[in-house]
Amino acid sequence: MLKAAIVGATGYTGWELVSILLCHPKVRPFYLTSDSFAGRSFAEIYPQFRGRCELILEKLDEEKAGACDIIFAALPHGTSLEVVPGLLATGKKVVDLSGDFRLKDAALYPLWYGYEHKHPALLAESVYGLPEQNRAAVSKARLVANPGCYPTSVQLPLIPLLQAGLVETEDIIIDAKSGVSGAGRTPKQPYHFPECAENFKAYKVTGHQHTPEIEQGLSEAAGRQVTLLFTPHLVPMIRGILSTMYLRLKPGVKVEDITALYRKVYADEPFIRLLPEPYLPETKDVSGTNFCDLAFRVDGRTGRLIVVSAIDNLVKGAAGQAVQNMNIMLDLPETAGLM
Amino acid sequence: MLKAAIVGATGYTGWELVSILLCHPKVRPFYLTSDSFAGRSFAEIYPQFRGRCELILEKLDEEKAGACDIIFAALPHGTSLEVVPGLLATGKKVVDLSGDFRLKDAALYPLWYGYEHKHPALLAESVYGLPEQNRAAVSKARLVANPGCYPTSVQLPLIPLLQAGLVETEDIIIDAKSGVSGAGRTPKQPYHFPECAENFKAYKVTGHQHTPEIEQGLSEAAGRQVTLLFTPHLVPMIRGILSTMYLRLKPGVKVEDITALYRKVYADEPFIRLLPEPYLPETKDVSGTNFCDLAFRVDGRTGRLIVVSAIDNLVKGAAGQAVQNMNIMLDLPETAGLM
Amino acid sequence: MLKAAIVGATGYTGWELVSILLCHPKVRPFYLTSDSFAGRSFAEIYPQFRGRCELILEKLDEEKAGACDIIFAALPHGTSLEVVPGLLATGKKVVDLSGDFRLKDAALYPLWYGYEHKHPALLAESVYGLPEQNRAAVSKARLVANPGCYPTSVQLPLIPLLQAGLVETEDIIIDAKSGVSGAGRTPKQPYHFPECAENFKAYKVTGHQHTPEIEQGLSEAAGRQVTLLFTPHLVPMIRGILSTMYLRLKPGVKVEDITALYRKVYADEPFIRLLPEPYLPETKDVSGTNFCDLAFRVDGRTGRLIVVSAIDNLVKGAAGQAVQNMNIMLDLPETAGLM
Amino acid sequence: MLKAAIVGATGYTGWELVSILLCHPKVRPFYLTSDSFAGRSFAEIYPQFRGRCELILEKLDEEKAGACDIIFAALPHGTSLEVVPGLLATGKKVVDLSGDFRLKDAALYPLWYGYEHKHPALLAESVYGLPEQNRAAVSKARLVANPGCYPTSVQLPLIPLLQAGLVETEDIIIDAKSGVSGAGRTPKQPYHFPECAENFKAYKVTGHQHTPEIEQGLSEAAGRQVTLLFTPHLVPMIRGILSTMYLRLKPGVKVEDITALYRKVYADEPFIRLLPEPYLPETKDVSGTNFCDLAFRVDGRTGRLIVVSAIDNLVKGAAGQAVQNMNIMLDLPETAGLM
Repeated sequence: MLKAAIVGATGYTGWELVSILLCHPKVRPFYLTSDSFAGRSFAEIYPQFRGRCELILEKLDEEKAGACDIIFAALPHGTSLEVVPGLLATGKKVVDLSGDFRLKDAALYPLWYGYEHKHPALLAESVYGLPEQNRAAVSKARLVANPGCYPTSVQLPLIPLLQAGLVETEDIIIDAKSGVSGAGRTPKQPYHFPECAENFKAYKVTGHQHTPEIEQGLSEAAGRQVTLLFTPHLVPMIRGILSTMYLRLKPGVKVEDITALYRKVYADEPFIRLLPEPYLPETKDVSGTNFCDLAFRVDGRTGRLIVVSAIDNLVKGAAGQAVQNMNIMLDLPETAGLM
Repeated sequence: MLKAAIVGATGYTGWELVSILLCHPKVRPFYLTSDSFAGRSFAEIYPQFRGRCELILEKLDEEKAGACDIIFAALPHGTSLEVVPGLLATGKKVVDLSGDFRLKDAALYPLWYGYEHKHPALLAESVYGLPEQNRAAVSKARLVANPGCYPTSVQLPLIPLLQAGLVETEDIIIDAKSGVSGAGRTPKQPYHFPECAENFKAYKVTGHQHTPEIEQGLSEAAGRQVTLLFTPHLVPMIRGILSTMYLRLKPGVKVEDITALYRKVYADEPFIRLLPEPYLPETKDVSGTNFCDLAFRVDGRTGRLIVVSAIDNLVKGAAGQAVQNMNIMLDLPETAGLM
Repeated sequence: MLKAAIVGATGYTGWELVSILLCHPKVRPFYLTSDSFAGRSFAEIYPQFRGRCELILEKLDEEKAGACDIIFAALPHGTSLEVVPGLLATGKKVVDLSGDFRLKDAALYPLWYGYEHKHPALLAESVYGLPEQNRAAVSKARLVANPGCYPTSVQLPLIPLLQAGLVETEDIIIDAKSGVSGAGRTPKQPYHFPECAENFKAYKVTGHQHTPEIEQGLSEAAGRQVTLLFTPHLVPMIRGILSTMYLRLKPGVKVEDITALYRKVYADEPFIRLLPEPYLPETKDVSGTNFCDLAFRVDGRTGRLIVVSAIDNLVKGAAGQAVQNMNIMLDLPETAGLM
Repeated sequence: MLKAAIVGATGYTGWELVSILLCHPKVRPFYLTSDSFAGRSFAEIYPQFRGRCELILEKLDEEKAGACDIIFAALPHGTSLEVVPGLLATGKKVVDLSGDFRLKDAALYPLWYGYEHKHPALLAESVYGLPEQNRAAVSKARLVANPGCYPTSVQLPLIPLLQAGLVETEDIIIDAKSGVSGAGRTPKQPYHFPECAENFKAYKVTGHQHTPEIEQGLSEAAGRQVTLLFTPHLVPMIRGILSTMYLRLKPGVKVEDITALYRKVYADEPFIRLLPEPYLPETKDVSGTNFCDLAFRVDGRTGRLIVVSAIDNLVKGAAGQAVQNMNIMLDLPETAGLM
């Protein structure tokens, strides 16, 4: 068995990584770090793992991480930036689940993340880990920047449309909705059960840090700058993201063209499911899985294309995709541990 | 005390009507009808009313309804169409909560509701009961068509913008989200708790029957035909609607213009609350109330205007607004029983 | 209008007090204090009150509290102990919603609350505010100790049984379940939405501080020491308590005796509803109300009596009962503002 | 790969069986039957299985079921009774998930299930499939009666206590709480989301059909008739059962005795986890797993023993335990597909 280090194992993405790797046929969680809970067992923090993962959490020791075959960094934005260079120095491959190495343009970090990026060379080197697009690059990468949850749910359905030139690059509107685990494990007022249950709201309207990440992916696909509107919302459920995307078809493009394109691009992708009419994605259908479900409709009245996608924010939107990347980086079957 | 008849009292809107009227200073629920539960007490169907409303449900007898001072019809679409003419024949005023008398153009009914409208004269006569727009007409109406839940959440924020000509009439996109009570009280698979909790989905994409109702209101406001895209979603919560609306500002229009407009139009409206920055509407803040909360943002990057509104679908989106209309029709203080 | 001071207005019980008093015909919230949010408006903390209660929160000034007609202390256990003597010194009547003045035996505080009680004279003087039992004493009280949520749900059904001697005082078992608002408004890990939704658990087994409060009430009713077992549980819902109580009937006692007793004792109580067969209490039937619903069954096989009660933990279990006590103390109709 | 037939595949237990077997290393779902959905694909009914299980549902054909290596009957009570004899006639082993073959005393069926049992010989032959107790008998059984969800959660913790004689057989009280999936997949009013969310209630007080099943198991363990009180409750969550059990210790029995017993009996059981102080079972810790978590406390004040257990009602309480039984019956590793 290969050994995995998870740096920052006690957040929800670290927890989901452990959960997935415990069922992986070739890799096992071996070294788990936590600043806050060092010295305690992982199962003490997450009692569902009693008898299944009794590893003791430790403060990060780069040497120990480097003794593993793969290193996952599941740290908050800003912290990863500090830690990842040291992890790479061990000579082992790193999958980083934060946003710190996703944006190629370092100038975007002060605007959207509120800090100056100190490692532009790593930004240049890092591979954006959307396997359905970047499989080859991921397989050779030393550092994979694992995509954000919202960006995954948006790019998987939209990149093919933009690459094929079936839609206009103007006027793209993305209305996305996420379960509460997307806000992390630290208790805060808006996620306190009595505030959050029986409530629905938009947040960070016009200002969410996943906006430039989505634009980067779509711009590359379109071959020109895409500027779009992205509005996230909070749903009173634990897991899941549903994104509703509004686009304009290029003149002459028909329903059949889109169907044909998706079939061509995604027929052999194990984790992408195009739903036939009359079905529409629902978050419960992808909960606990690495699937991205998608469907689309063309509105005859306005000529608009509506695309809907659903993922589990913690799986295809984080830990599952990280394991998918790991499988590619370690030359394992891409679906290992994910089906 | 004035007497109210509620025809179809055991659906969720009938239930909410009873609930509101029990606290009304001038009107009390007096005659409740139900086909399915005739002969049983209202409190037997809704035990929270034990000791508060023990009226016996009856099969509809028009004469008894006509003996009341106001008649509410809280019936399914299609059924109201059959029943309302007889209610009007009693000579009493009727507030109809279905969609059957909302659309002025009878030709829209086959397309969106699936039936031929048999009473075009009543369509012409009925007054669309959005008090913030039609107060004067409501006060004289014999038949008020109480607006739909989604249309209320959309028209209250958008009509002023279109009337004032601050926004383009093209390219309006409405992404709306509703709690499950909007689907009614009859148990069905999609609303069975284990299917519906921990799930989020879009439904009736491009085909929801509230689309033409919204377009009718916005077209009248704009003075020209508005065709828009409306996508409803189902939220795992009991009550509440949040609508996120995407519009394009007319050239030269600024944030201040919109603020000024809303202040002018809505400053004296008791049920409309414009939230200042940095606040955004949340459904829990209007739950159980007749308020419509609204806020907006202008996205500097795309030039788009985003408007967000929240209402309680059963109150301002149904029974509360019906009582507001009743207050106007009976010349009572408009906020009576609603504060 | 009479004026109410609420000391500690931003916790959930303070919030519910404001909510109830805003609809009260004779008393209005006038002076609200908060340590953490002094200087901000109440509506800023609880946006649902925008336009309805824009009072500015202040640090407690006893003189200002004393200028009101009634003072509510809605503070955490231990804090109330410090604050209430000063409030009483203003000469105004005080309803204290904490546990600090509920137990007559000061020696119980170190054991169950973890502190030495410094004001035994106030313990002796305070009146336990269960109006259905202590109406006369409440009407003359200077200090009312408003009962705990669990104790209210247990004592209302059990005190009459013990007073009448229909049940044994041994072997009483109480299995109680509460919504999450009972844990207060401060965010903590166990009440973080993703930890708390889709979860059910027992907590503080054998050690909950409401145990001696329940025993005190039942012992007084029985005329002898009652020692019982009380086990609370956390339900993934916002509001509501349901208590399932297991007792042993005294020899010869029949179903009819219990029905007759409850009818005699509670027929005229406006907030107690005895449900006939086959109905059983459900928390949603009392949600947002000051009702206590109760029902019982006798198990022929084991001879046990099972009593089930439901209340809204924030209303009859806290703020509603506090207002009921206030009504009595100020010689207002007992149901004012509560129906 | 061995082949499994699932008769009645579209209820929640059938669905969970498919879900578990899809990950099983030695057995795959092969033949799925449904009366209501015959002719449609399983993935059409449960879209989360798109691309993972596209089997077509068929009306039951005993010959086809008999061509599989194991047959699961996941049918409603009463229906199984009719169907199982024919399944056994194929010569294949059957795991029945209904209550129809669990009670050894046929006379109990009219009382608790409302029908006369027509196959007393099968009652005599069937093996009660609680592997932790009946492993050897299960391995040789032709017909296994898979235990009920509540009875599993109760018997696993209590049988060892009764076998060892550490507790009295009198006065056992069980207060159990279940998620809504326990009520099955058919939509009904009490499980309609708006009725069921934000609600908690007891149901079938003194009359739940799992009572005699629990008594049968405990009586056998005690070597004498045990009559107990069992009260189920409905929790607004999808999955999970938590049972709180109240017992009386025999004189002289100490905390250490119970700990020692549980350790002895369950140390090597892969699916039983005894939680050390201060931990208590929570349903989320066993959700999606075949674990039964358990903990206990002795109340010094009343001398009572409180035992708390948690299982996933659909896994250890139904499909997971059925697969565990299948593993034993087919001589596969007992934990195969369950870890």
